[in-house]
Amino acid sequence: MRRFDEELNTLSEALQEMGSLVAQSIHRSVLSLVEKNEDYAHQVVRDEARINQLEIQIDDLATTLIARESPVAGDMRFVVVAIKINTDLERMGDMAVGIVERSLAALRQPELPMNVSFTEMANLVESMVLTSLDAFVKRDPQLARTVLTSDDAVDKLRNLITRQMIELMKRDPSTVERAVDYILIARRLERIADHATNVAEDVIFMVKGVDVRHRTQVDIG
Amino acid sequence: MRRFDEELNTLSEALQEMGSLVAQSIHRSVLSLVEKNEDYAHQVVRDEARINQLEIQIDDLATTLIARESPVAGDMRFVVVAIKINTDLERMGDMAVGIVERSLAALRQPELPMNVSFTEMANLVESMVLTSLDAFVKRDPQLARTVLTSDDAVDKLRNLITRQMIELMKRDPSTVERAVDYILIARRLERIADHATNVAEDVIFMVKGVDVRHRTQVDIG
Repeated sequence: MRRFDEELNTLSEALQEMGSLVAQSIHRSVLSLVEKNEDYAHQVVRDEARINQLEIQIDDLATTLIARESPVAGDMRFVVVAIKINTDLERMGDMAVGIVERSLAALRQPELPMNVSFTEMANLVESMVLTSLDAFVKRDPQLARTVLTSDDAVDKLRNLITRQMIELMKRDPSTVERAVDYILIARRLERIADHATNVAEDVIFMVKGVDVRHRTQVDIG
Repeated sequence: MRRFDEELNTLSEALQEMGSLVAQSIHRSVLSLVEKNEDYAHQVVRDEARINQLEIQIDDLATTLIARESPVAGDMRFVVVAIKINTDLERMGDMAVGIVERSLAALRQPELPMNVSFTEMANLVESMVLTSLDAFVKRDPQLARTVLTSDDAVDKLRNLITRQMIELMKRDPSTVERAVDYILIARRLERIADHATNVAEDVIFMVKGVDVRHRTQVDIG
């Protein structure tokens, strides 16, 4: 294997390690709420430090690779997209910590009734993160497209949770603080899904050279 | 001027153009709410298309520059940071559109009483965006540090607005929908401020080679 290919492999593996850690943090951030388990919350905060270190290492790997190998065309795009994905993953880690902050506040209070579970939403988001990274490593635009489909499902779940919480607050003002926490947790999960969608769009762009990053029309009715 | 310096200049200017457009969109997104002006809202949506085009152009500029000039050390970091800032700016544009969506919903309803104005928060956020870009172009870490200070002020304003809205919803359930909209607008402004902070931290890292990106401790008390 050429040194260049080895370096590309190292970069891919580092991003996958970071992705697994981020997916685990998303999982635990929601479990801390659903299972009322503070240990999970503390693990998420601890793992954020590791995620932050990985971000710096991956930027270094990518820039060293560009400087040493001067990759061209598709390979250059791969490295640039790696830098972008790296940024997205680190931000997802921040969001998981943000969920934990609200979760720790919420789990000292009685639970609120909801028909949509955060677990369902978190599982979907977690799989989007892993799939988008998988699509990157395999340079597979088909796989990346499945992530875009899941994003719509996540938006629907977020809207459902928000509407339920609004109804609840109107009926019973004593639920306001907790309901706002739940709304913000749903928003943060949605933000993570948005990052995974960005990754998927970057992968499609990278492989096809076609830009789908700005495909969605805004409906401002 | 060497061709290389010219290319670096072109890259800086493109990022500044994008930054001005993003700052203007932030301004207009909040004005559309405060002045109940739908025209501003539609301009924000229109300008997002231009911001998205600029993102693609800037990525192209940066990768062409790396491929052609193989910059080293400080110059390479400058170009990599340009790619990261580009991503941040595009996300800020998304957030401005997000504010507009809530604003269009909110401005058809009676205003809610608040002591903190969105205008104050938006002015602060807008200046963070412009200052962080200025710090990048001038490679000035001192200037970048002022952005980090403003970020704390933005967080305080966001907390104030959230607390006011929570109190309001508890007192008067008929305000719930609008109050949730206001909370989400404040969150989106805060997210923009977070992006500007990321830019500033990248600039400090770029110039000093010191990583301040992960300086903040999470308080999960």
